[in-house]
Amino acid sequence: MFKTFETYLKEKADLTVDEMVAVRAVSIEKKIRKRQYLLQEGDVCHYNCFIVKGCLRLYRVGEDGTEHILRFGVENWWMSDRESYNTGDPSKGNIDALENSEVILIDKPDFNNLTTTIPRLNNFIEKLKARSFDASQNRIMSNISRTAEERYQEFMTFFPDIFYRVPLHMIASYLGVSRETLSRIRSQFSHK
Amino acid sequence: MFKTFETYLKEKADLTVDEMVAVRAVSIEKKIRKRQYLLQEGDVCHYNCFIVKGCLRLYRVGEDGTEHILRFGVENWWMSDRESYNTGDPSKGNIDALENSEVILIDKPDFNNLTTTIPRLNNFIEKLKARSFDASQNRIMSNISRTAEERYQEFMTFFPDIFYRVPLHMIASYLGVSRETLSRIRSQFSHK
Repeated sequence: MFKTFETYLKEKADLTVDEMVAVRAVSIEKKIRKRQYLLQEGDVCHYNCFIVKGCLRLYRVGEDGTEHILRFGVENWWMSDRESYNTGDPSKGNIDALENSEVILIDKPDFNNLTTTIPRLNNFIEKLKARSFDASQNRIMSNISRTAEERYQEFMTFFPDIFYRVPLHMIASYLGVSRETLSRIRSQFSHK
Repeated sequence: MFKTFETYLKEKADLTVDEMVAVRAVSIEKKIRKRQYLLQEGDVCHYNCFIVKGCLRLYRVGEDGTEHILRFGVENWWMSDRESYNTGDPSKGNIDALENSEVILIDKPDFNNLTTTIPRLNNFIEKLKARSFDASQNRIMSNISRTAEERYQEFMTFFPDIFYRVPLHMIASYLGVSRETLSRIRSQFSHK
């Protein structure tokens, strides 16, 4: 399982053999079955999670019990509740597996130690965080400026690997539209 | 003008006298008249901007020419197009002043130098970035889970200082609702 993470880190952050040994020493391999939780609302998010295999989602539950999906994650993506991770406060979100998945976990003190001692890793992680913020801004822009149809098409274009892997009602949840609206949009697309 | 920034930095990051001298040496004071631009779409965002006085907004223009507001900023807030600042790519957004404003600008190389040499400043900026990311996630959650009425009320509750300072059609733009919808919501509120 670590092999995939190693390949990823080698490509993205060009770590040396010694640095990779240090990462491996604190990496926890974990398998998560479909529907199993990696994090539950109210618990503190202590780990950075790298997805080796499978598909996970981060979602929050609204006051009426509806699930609202903030993120999906697949192979070579990271997944955590950053707010809880950073603040140490109980998480507002849940992370669970949509498929049988394999992940690498690194806990916060170990992760901080790695980024402090390995500048190239730190630079890469800083870039990742910046890109993640940019992606959030682009999603907000999309939410406030595009129609449901346009957001659906955008999702299909930018995340084809997720689009064909997750149930339709979850795409509706991510886009913030009702299932009925999404069904209508899909039938319009299939008629085009 | 620097006095306000100094008070802010003293309170938030507890800088020493020498550190404050270093910050002052690279701080550029600038006045921006109402409607004047700090950044225009297509230009690269080279500066971190701290708002001493006034009110600014960051917005992008949609394909149909509509303005979509991503952020407002008032006294003691920071304002930049982070995507352009980080990547060095031309900005997708515009920043202009909604009131006559006063800002402190620090350019990217100088800012990097400050955060590298002043760990307490770096820690504070990292926390700010994390909070900014969390705010983005909360706004996405709001966009995908709440009604226009709820988002309007949320804005009024969390940003009263902005709510009473900016024109209504800009609040509509920020919330991603039409002016007509916002007028309807407001008249409902005034009848309650």
